[in-house]
Amino acid sequence: MNGAESLVKTLLAGEVDVCFANPGTSEMHFVAALDGHPDMRCILGLHETVVTGAADGYARMADKPAVTLLHLGPGLGNGLANIHNARRARSPMVNVVGEHAREHKAYNAPLTTDIEGIARPVSDWVRTIASPDTVGRDTAAAIQAASRRPGQISTLVLPADIAWSPSNGPAAVEPADAAPVPAGAEIDRIAALLKSGAPTVLLLGDGALREEPLNMAGRIAAKTGCSLLGPLSNKRITRGAGRVALNRVPYVVDMARALLEPFEHMVIIGAREPVAFFGYPESPSRLCPDSCRIHRLADASFDLPATLEALADAVGARQAAPAVSTLDRPAVPTGEIDQDKIALMIAAMMPENAVVADESITTGRMFFPATHTAPPHDWVQITGGAIGIGPPLATGAAIGAPGRKVVSLQADGSGLYSAQALWTQAREGLDVTTLVFANHSYAILQGEMRKVGVENPGRNAIDMLSLDRPRIDWVHLAKGYGVNAARATSMEELSDAFGRGLAEPGPYLIEVAM
Amino acid sequence: MNGAESLVKTLLAGEVDVCFANPGTSEMHFVAALDGHPDMRCILGLHETVVTGAADGYARMADKPAVTLLHLGPGLGNGLANIHNARRARSPMVNVVGEHAREHKAYNAPLTTDIEGIARPVSDWVRTIASPDTVGRDTAAAIQAASRRPGQISTLVLPADIAWSPSNGPAAVEPADAAPVPAGAEIDRIAALLKSGAPTVLLLGDGALREEPLNMAGRIAAKTGCSLLGPLSNKRITRGAGRVALNRVPYVVDMARALLEPFEHMVIIGAREPVAFFGYPESPSRLCPDSCRIHRLADASFDLPATLEALADAVGARQAAPAVSTLDRPAVPTGEIDQDKIALMIAAMMPENAVVADESITTGRMFFPATHTAPPHDWVQITGGAIGIGPPLATGAAIGAPGRKVVSLQADGSGLYSAQALWTQAREGLDVTTLVFANHSYAILQGEMRKVGVENPGRNAIDMLSLDRPRIDWVHLAKGYGVNAARATSMEELSDAFGRGLAEPGPYLIEVAM
Repeated sequence: MNGAESLVKTLLAGEVDVCFANPGTSEMHFVAALDGHPDMRCILGLHETVVTGAADGYARMADKPAVTLLHLGPGLGNGLANIHNARRARSPMVNVVGEHAREHKAYNAPLTTDIEGIARPVSDWVRTIASPDTVGRDTAAAIQAASRRPGQISTLVLPADIAWSPSNGPAAVEPADAAPVPAGAEIDRIAALLKSGAPTVLLLGDGALREEPLNMAGRIAAKTGCSLLGPLSNKRITRGAGRVALNRVPYVVDMARALLEPFEHMVIIGAREPVAFFGYPESPSRLCPDSCRIHRLADASFDLPATLEALADAVGARQAAPAVSTLDRPAVPTGEIDQDKIALMIAAMMPENAVVADESITTGRMFFPATHTAPPHDWVQITGGAIGIGPPLATGAAIGAPGRKVVSLQADGSGLYSAQALWTQAREGLDVTTLVFANHSYAILQGEMRKVGVENPGRNAIDMLSLDRPRIDWVHLAKGYGVNAARATSMEELSDAFGRGLAEPGPYLIEVAM
Repeated sequence: MNGAESLVKTLLAGEVDVCFANPGTSEMHFVAALDGHPDMRCILGLHETVVTGAADGYARMADKPAVTLLHLGPGLGNGLANIHNARRARSPMVNVVGEHAREHKAYNAPLTTDIEGIARPVSDWVRTIASPDTVGRDTAAAIQAASRRPGQISTLVLPADIAWSPSNGPAAVEPADAAPVPAGAEIDRIAALLKSGAPTVLLLGDGALREEPLNMAGRIAAKTGCSLLGPLSNKRITRGAGRVALNRVPYVVDMARALLEPFEHMVIIGAREPVAFFGYPESPSRLCPDSCRIHRLADASFDLPATLEALADAVGARQAAPAVSTLDRPAVPTGEIDQDKIALMIAAMMPENAVVADESITTGRMFFPATHTAPPHDWVQITGGAIGIGPPLATGAAIGAPGRKVVSLQADGSGLYSAQALWTQAREGLDVTTLVFANHSYAILQGEMRKVGVENPGRNAIDMLSLDRPRIDWVHLAKGYGVNAARATSMEELSDAFGRGLAEPGPYLIEVAM
């Protein structure tokens, strides 16, 4: 058994059985080993940003890491932005990066790069395998690091000669340590605070955003009158009818401040204190009022469901009824397309148990509030601000949640970063309906441009913020990648096309003329 | 004047007047400053791999750096692979990466990244501007570093608050130091070697590959009987009728070894000793026979034209007539499409003074030898092995060589990494005719797969190396990006379409069915 086979067998032993890949020559022995193990599902991306973004989407739905296969430093570099997003989502991911054979590296061949140097800024754990006899152990360590709660980025560098040399076989993967819960005294202190009636918000993040812990938080809110809030950007929220409706901290700084203004206390469970996305002149980075006390009850590595249960017990809320959304389908809007009508249409038509992948940026600011009363669904979104995760995220989510419809809500400027993912959707027959909101601009930046005082942008500013010369034709693009597509210029056309996409299996794309 | 304005004015003072950009919020003050300076030409890329690859193509033709505008760590990460290629080409490039305001960085907002850490593995020079008062000086230093012969990658990190704060204005850019030439004794030693008649090859790289130094090398070869050779991957070669025909070291290891086998001496002028692209089991990395002595006369930082003149003088070759190619247009082939016929067609139809951007990988192995006798042209190619430079390279070359037709020879798998560059070609009305060789596979890897002993690949290997399920439709893709396109399934259709593309101004794409 060679090193590559030891690696694949260790991955499978660790229940890592989906590989998103774009291999090159230095990974050929690894590819051969994967080929010998059909229980590993290999999925090709046309660019590594698809590979790593899909691995993130997969992990969010499957609750375990996928492995990526990347070709030396440049392949890793291509995947960097979506590894960054995955890390901000705390998604588990095992990256295997092929490296030159150790003796060859000294010759500084064209693809020679400092792979560890490129990996480190976006990885929690980095190791170059140093011997064929440690492949199993190193791979097991990579999986363990990735699986460390709530999830980490592992990058394992595999020199080609280690892949092709005889090896002593796979290693076992240790189960993760049990996650901690806060000390009883700390629970009691927060319980006393909640019972005091002081204006308090529970900020819930990461694993606290699934149905059970959210329900538990809803019981606490019902009993104590505290408010619930989620961060702006989240790995995955379980929501819709029958679930607790959670608002998120808004992107716009003034709106976020206004929302947080009333609170004297913020209790953080699995999140971090909310801060502005960007700094601006004369504008503080913190969003909470200075008078608000921050209580960090549990970070994301804690057992958040157990933390919320303990807190519910401490405030006597176990029997309280959480305020959950009731199904309320609005009518499907007609006439001219606008953002609010699209939001209503999504709420009206979203299928039961859908997965919504959200990179809708400016167009989508109403989509989330409008869908609290839609049928039960999961919401996954861009987390690290690196645009271009939408199409890969939807792709990976479809693989991680088989049998569920994925609705991909996509800003056009961001979608152009990784439209290649459409091809993987076609290749794998994934059930993804994509709405591309074609405003033909980086609309968010046009707002930011006004903020810096440029009211009448000239040629250079217009050229850098607009996408309308020429207009991208998304129907052609999608067909180029093998995905059926249509353009909608009215709400009637849009709801017709959306219905078609939802009704049919496989990928479908709608360019929404804004 | 704020920091951003000081930066732009320093760039313009240093004759850096083309900016390839994909900005974000943290760069808005820089965008505003660019907007105030219409003498800076700003060109948008839909993804940073387009931005950095185009900056490379521009530098190769304009012989000076462009500036790139990138959005924090993820924007830089997206551009990493083509920065790697540019660095391997020794193209000068000034990257300006926007960073959070310094006070904001402490809050670990979603886009917070270790920008310097990401930059360092692909940059020769990295600096984060530390004060509004050093913006001019730091920018001048970045330009000077990029311009250091033969060319370097500078990465300058611009915190948003430094961009928006009052600054003390631009700085002057120091001219580059004169390039060295080898000592006279060293020239004389090599001259004696050449005159001895021992089998010797001059390996010419970088700046030795332009018309004048190549002619000088041709005189030396004519006088002494030595051979001339270029590296596999080159920044730019001036070639065609009236120029010295230079063969390159082949990619295939056995072919390279066979070519180099006869030589007892290799004299290196502006290049590095040729090595295998990848290491293989039982296969040495060096391509020269062990018995061949390597003489490093001048590295790429030297004044290579002066080096070759001195060597020509020392061997008495100044009056010798170099063997130059004579114009020889083959007939345009007809019938079924194959690689050899495409090579002949390119040689038959290439316009005078074209720029050929070559990322044709397996399909294109005959293109270079077949075009020695084409009309005079420049050849630029992928240098660092990071696929996906072709479309951006052609885009940047067109901007760096206005008035010249760019012929982009593109492998399909590689082109899918950065097809977004087609949109920039349409937007800027660039005169680029692209041939996409649609073999619907990573053909180079299918060969490598056989080399590692997999004769009958299974589902996983087939899935990772083939692009034919579904087939990419390049005509749709190109139209999606606003570029006219056609598909050719016979040599007649291909030469018709190629003629159309060459005759008309602006971009045009032909999918060549292989």
